[in-house]
Amino acid sequence: MFQESTKKTNLSELGEFALIEKLTNAFTVKNQTTQKGIGDDAAVINVGKELMLISTDMLVEGIHFDLVYSPLKHLGFKAISTNVSDIAAMNGIAKQVTVSLAVSSKYTIEALEELYQGIWLACEKFKVDLIGGDTTSSPTGLTISITVVGTVDPEKIVYRNTAKENDLIVVSGDLGGAYVGLQILEREKQVYLSSPGIQPELEGFDYILERQLKPEARVDLKELFEKLEVLPTSMIDVSDGLSSELHHICKQSNLGCVIFEEKIPIDPTTYQTARDLNLDPTVCALNGGEDYELLFTIPLNEYDKIKGNPNFTVIGHTTDKNSGLNLHSKSGTIVPILAQGWNSFNTNSH
Amino acid sequence: MFQESTKKTNLSELGEFALIEKLTNAFTVKNQTTQKGIGDDAAVINVGKELMLISTDMLVEGIHFDLVYSPLKHLGFKAISTNVSDIAAMNGIAKQVTVSLAVSSKYTIEALEELYQGIWLACEKFKVDLIGGDTTSSPTGLTISITVVGTVDPEKIVYRNTAKENDLIVVSGDLGGAYVGLQILEREKQVYLSSPGIQPELEGFDYILERQLKPEARVDLKELFEKLEVLPTSMIDVSDGLSSELHHICKQSNLGCVIFEEKIPIDPTTYQTARDLNLDPTVCALNGGEDYELLFTIPLNEYDKIKGNPNFTVIGHTTDKNSGLNLHSKSGTIVPILAQGWNSFNTNSH
Repeated sequence: MFQESTKKTNLSELGEFALIEKLTNAFTVKNQTTQKGIGDDAAVINVGKELMLISTDMLVEGIHFDLVYSPLKHLGFKAISTNVSDIAAMNGIAKQVTVSLAVSSKYTIEALEELYQGIWLACEKFKVDLIGGDTTSSPTGLTISITVVGTVDPEKIVYRNTAKENDLIVVSGDLGGAYVGLQILEREKQVYLSSPGIQPELEGFDYILERQLKPEARVDLKELFEKLEVLPTSMIDVSDGLSSELHHICKQSNLGCVIFEEKIPIDPTTYQTARDLNLDPTVCALNGGEDYELLFTIPLNEYDKIKGNPNFTVIGHTTDKNSGLNLHSKSGTIVPILAQGWNSFNTNSH
Repeated sequence: MFQESTKKTNLSELGEFALIEKLTNAFTVKNQTTQKGIGDDAAVINVGKELMLISTDMLVEGIHFDLVYSPLKHLGFKAISTNVSDIAAMNGIAKQVTVSLAVSSKYTIEALEELYQGIWLACEKFKVDLIGGDTTSSPTGLTISITVVGTVDPEKIVYRNTAKENDLIVVSGDLGGAYVGLQILEREKQVYLSSPGIQPELEGFDYILERQLKPEARVDLKELFEKLEVLPTSMIDVSDGLSSELHHICKQSNLGCVIFEEKIPIDPTTYQTARDLNLDPTVCALNGGEDYELLFTIPLNEYDKIKGNPNFTVIGHTTDKNSGLNLHSKSGTIVPILAQGWNSFNTNSH
């Protein structure tokens, strides 16, 4: 009754990143302790000897998760793990977490206890303390908002915008599994909805289902970097998809890149299942997201330090900005890499 | 399809505080830097010379706000202000904030810009930096999750659980206004819904409407405490209602209290409007909430330091635990104070 509206622009006309930029460009920094605001995996606060890292994520039922196939315990684990991953992507260590829930009356206390069992498991695994939160009712569904706090040595922090030209581009683990796992879950959900009596066919898909339902933040890599005496020049976690993360690093570091399709690490189960579902495994790796591996750059002359390490795959290198972002396909053609990461405003499920 | 449930207990069978306790009692603290977890206005992290404070709140459309009468700009301001209030309640200074939104397609970019104008105004007023957040779509409505970060000198931090017996109980400003303002807005909403052409009658209610729609965190009191050389023995902000906050301080400090009804500060507009609406002004002050004043305790022998200060009203004193929490009514009777603060799981609007 107090509101008047004039111009109306749909949210889907802008992507998430452009929207955030539009909404926040008037904000200026007022506190000396604010070292880095919006624009990386985590914000950075200068608190003295160490830097403090803060990152936050919002998970919405029907957008980020579907309780038909996401057990609440796994959902709780994943919610913490994906936030811890943002701290790992700054080369930091997650220490504390807050968990806020908005929950409708269809949820029972027992259901929330299951969710918190998963949160507890992740807190134990990643050695983070649950220090607060807010719990409120909601007209529909479940919304989970997590904020994670971590620390990092100022000499060891790794941003997105500090890659250099001709750096090697490296990724941990393998890609595309979480997305292909989701396709299997979606397929079985359709079968279940049409014939509720039929048991879902999930045998043989353990690896990719786990990648989707219970991803583990790569908190092990910080120690490995130290052991190998490698400090990445830039880093980001693969949450929206390889192509989207490459765009973040290249745009913020003012660079281009070349990625070799044949080098992109894809697990055999991911590869075969994608093929069986008539999906291109490379596209799943580029655009699928939710792998929560770390994507980083290192100077060319440090190649020997990571060579042969089973945790890492060199997938390409950075170039000058004008060359753009390009994929050398297996067939020998060169195609531009588009930022087709997941955008919650343009899709109905993930 | 993977979920099996056995026992089912409705969320409304427990209050918010009991629910949080039930869900989080298995969690143990693993990091030395975690000085205080769940259970105060903010969590406390030891980062060296200063302590860091973290607090988080979730605001859900249809539960915490109604866009029929909450202008989005005011909503943005209030979301920041109420979080800053949690830091003020620890005697700290808010420095940074993250803002996450889950927003349905009914919202336009222009609507979100209005919301962010209010967020910007509050960030300017309270000198806090917007350092991050997450923006995602939602199947219905708007959910706002805010996390605020602040700092406090370890010698100056004020907890809830440190009140002493025979301390004076003091409140800043006046109480009940935000709740009575809400009743006016609800009344005019009903008129509007039945006859959309009629202009709402809001004249003369400016003070209580502002208390409801655009409350200001009492960030001024920290400086005033220093000037008066008073350090409260305990403190909390009045978000859920005076009675609920008294219960928090008394329970956590292992005390009882006596409050004198005639001392509870109520603004004349609040008082008269409550009467006109057939509401008891004292009940509005005790149970209404959302006043965002600070409730604190000081040693009896410091009374002279705050005596006559227009910002403060002594409303009672703490007692031994066994006496319980009691209200000396104007008529001379003594009635127990029940913890009837707002519980989002038992009501449909606020």
